[in-house]
Amino acid sequence: MTAEILTIGDEILIGQITNTNSVWIAQQLNLTGIKVLHMASVADDEAVIITAFDAALSRADFVFITGGLGPTKDDITKKTFAEYFETPLVLNEEVLANVSSFFNKRGKEVSEVNRQQALVPEGCFVIKNVHGTAPGMWMKKKNTVFISMPGVPYEMKAMVTDIVIPKIKKENTLPFIYHKTVLTQGVGESTLAEIISDWENNLSVKKIKLAYLPQPGIVRLRLSSSGTDFNLLKKNVEDEIEKLKLLIGKYIFGFEDYGEAAVTLQSIVSDLLRANKQTLSLAESCTGGYISSLITAIPGASDIFKGAIVPYTNTAKNELLNVDQKIFLTSGAVSRECVEQLAKNVLKKFKSDYSIAVSGIAGPTGGTIEKPVGLVWIAIANAEKTQSFKFIFGDNRQRNIIMTAQTSLNLLRKFILKLPI
Amino acid sequence: MTAEILTIGDEILIGQITNTNSVWIAQQLNLTGIKVLHMASVADDEAVIITAFDAALSRADFVFITGGLGPTKDDITKKTFAEYFETPLVLNEEVLANVSSFFNKRGKEVSEVNRQQALVPEGCFVIKNVHGTAPGMWMKKKNTVFISMPGVPYEMKAMVTDIVIPKIKKENTLPFIYHKTVLTQGVGESTLAEIISDWENNLSVKKIKLAYLPQPGIVRLRLSSSGTDFNLLKKNVEDEIEKLKLLIGKYIFGFEDYGEAAVTLQSIVSDLLRANKQTLSLAESCTGGYISSLITAIPGASDIFKGAIVPYTNTAKNELLNVDQKIFLTSGAVSRECVEQLAKNVLKKFKSDYSIAVSGIAGPTGGTIEKPVGLVWIAIANAEKTQSFKFIFGDNRQRNIIMTAQTSLNLLRKFILKLPI
Repeated sequence: MTAEILTIGDEILIGQITNTNSVWIAQQLNLTGIKVLHMASVADDEAVIITAFDAALSRADFVFITGGLGPTKDDITKKTFAEYFETPLVLNEEVLANVSSFFNKRGKEVSEVNRQQALVPEGCFVIKNVHGTAPGMWMKKKNTVFISMPGVPYEMKAMVTDIVIPKIKKENTLPFIYHKTVLTQGVGESTLAEIISDWENNLSVKKIKLAYLPQPGIVRLRLSSSGTDFNLLKKNVEDEIEKLKLLIGKYIFGFEDYGEAAVTLQSIVSDLLRANKQTLSLAESCTGGYISSLITAIPGASDIFKGAIVPYTNTAKNELLNVDQKIFLTSGAVSRECVEQLAKNVLKKFKSDYSIAVSGIAGPTGGTIEKPVGLVWIAIANAEKTQSFKFIFGDNRQRNIIMTAQTSLNLLRKFILKLPI
Repeated sequence: MTAEILTIGDEILIGQITNTNSVWIAQQLNLTGIKVLHMASVADDEAVIITAFDAALSRADFVFITGGLGPTKDDITKKTFAEYFETPLVLNEEVLANVSSFFNKRGKEVSEVNRQQALVPEGCFVIKNVHGTAPGMWMKKKNTVFISMPGVPYEMKAMVTDIVIPKIKKENTLPFIYHKTVLTQGVGESTLAEIISDWENNLSVKKIKLAYLPQPGIVRLRLSSSGTDFNLLKKNVEDEIEKLKLLIGKYIFGFEDYGEAAVTLQSIVSDLLRANKQTLSLAESCTGGYISSLITAIPGASDIFKGAIVPYTNTAKNELLNVDQKIFLTSGAVSRECVEQLAKNVLKKFKSDYSIAVSGIAGPTGGTIEKPVGLVWIAIANAEKTQSFKFIFGDNRQRNIIMTAQTSLNLLRKFILKLPI
């Protein structure tokens, strides 16, 4: 089966926002076994939208449409949708209840403009918006299903994951696809490619496709295979992963099965701590609170997280975390001595079972020949021992912050599991 | 004049890479006064590419094509291009010299595969590639100019900036476009739409287009107008913004001129503090270090940022930031009393000029009838005074964290500027 992705909105055409919705939808469809033939972005203009609908009608089984569903005047997708299907807009009581509940929860009345969100083309299958007020709409013309959703990414994503993909799977016979993603940390994409080169060349024999999905500090390797015998697909992929473990086992920190929640180092570490009924605290200098924000983004973080101190000055490192003043004069704030004191003292301050401390030169300025931009020291501690590690990342500030966070979390994971570091 | 942007390559359709080339080209065209009508991404497939060329031929003055020009077998754009223009591929000596020089500089011989890079459709205007080997091609069919360029961003960008746009400007008379974006915080898209409804209805008289660009906690309003008299366009837009200020002035925190760097609340607050040679510290409970990570993501943050404490437990709030134990028994950790003590005490701990403290129920669990998920208290302090504010956001944890951060930073901005809050 084939699909087309259509993004509606002037903001994309003038280059004001990058179209990340299309990428995400393409990934989901690809994982479901639906081939994306075409992606297009068009203006909030009725004639242009209709032309795009007609083009899609002639060649795709599914048309995924995002954007242009807001309550404001520049959003015309719904009106155009109704006209294309030659059906009037009618008030949908369930959507109205959803809109009312959305506003009432926030102590607000539903305005006339917002009541209009509850209008949908007659005969359409309404896709409930659990995070917002604009409903999604599913309608069929000839053999093509048109699915219109809001452009707000998290509203759209919930609709696709919870309703649209399950409905497509239920109503169609799609080939089986078995995907598994191997998560690695601490090794770059090109080094990885060299290590696994022979293994990779042999994948085609078993009709397994490999994709490298790199992000700062992490490379995900996605293996996928499609066919009619699910058990065979699964066995083939799992066998290859066993071989891969022998080659790059020390870099692997986890696996993702398709359709399950994304596995992150912060989620792995949080789950480990929760299982052990243990807690964590952080002393973050160069990462400036970023590791703490990753941990606390996870619901229930307070079970395992006692807190963090971001001592962004030497005075704060000394006064809040008792780093000896003389360290700043001898080794400096970016040193083994400093991060070890930070890790030991933050552990005591918060009475946590584990701690992480980081100190580095995030850049773009502040580097010297001896201590270049990208130099980072990380220490991990518990009551028994403190271990510290030196890294030199790159010259991009944001990337250095992310690399430090990912590396720290993986070191903590190994420390908790008593793996060789 | 109008343009269409066409991206060729399977890697975009399977969601493996995000299409950033299109965004960048759209920005350049917009600044040049060329309206982008349509963007599309299609597979490396001859028939599909020809269909896309034909569609573009019927509606655009310029077609910008990227991708599919590499030397490997799956790259078929050039062959398709020559067929579309019914002209043979011929060896171009200048391109061959460029390709040879490229490889010779790197101490390599030019392979047969790479010699083929010097083939171009007969009669085409060659766009020199200063950073690589695949040449760009400019050809005209009927009234439409087709411009094919490599997909490697920095190769393509140099061609557009140095050759394509200057050539378009030389050969055509283009209109001017004036854009300005108004940044608002603390008001939702639909409420904003109601307040400015009459103003918005009158924009068409001056041929100004308005777009709402919402993100959590922030709505950006983009005004744009095109015509032949740049000063008039600018005056019209600026006049309307003056009227807008009278309606929603209290929500406006800044402006973005098109093509300049994005303006964020953290950058505005950092710049204000830097200009005043003042500093900030944070006590972040429900935001868990997120505000700190926003501030420290900006290069040079150490000039204005002393640090943060994330007291994720009541014990930490008491021991690290001296919140009275009795407050937890009476008002609770999510209360005016608690955030005010946090703000005052973190200010003293870090000896900063300003502080922000936040405490709330981020969710998804932990809410009660009296204190629902989404309830957040924020306090802002300096040595003279402490002000605190209560908010009820929504039920999405990540969104509540972002809304709290944006709201806090805007409150601090107003506090520093002594604006009414």
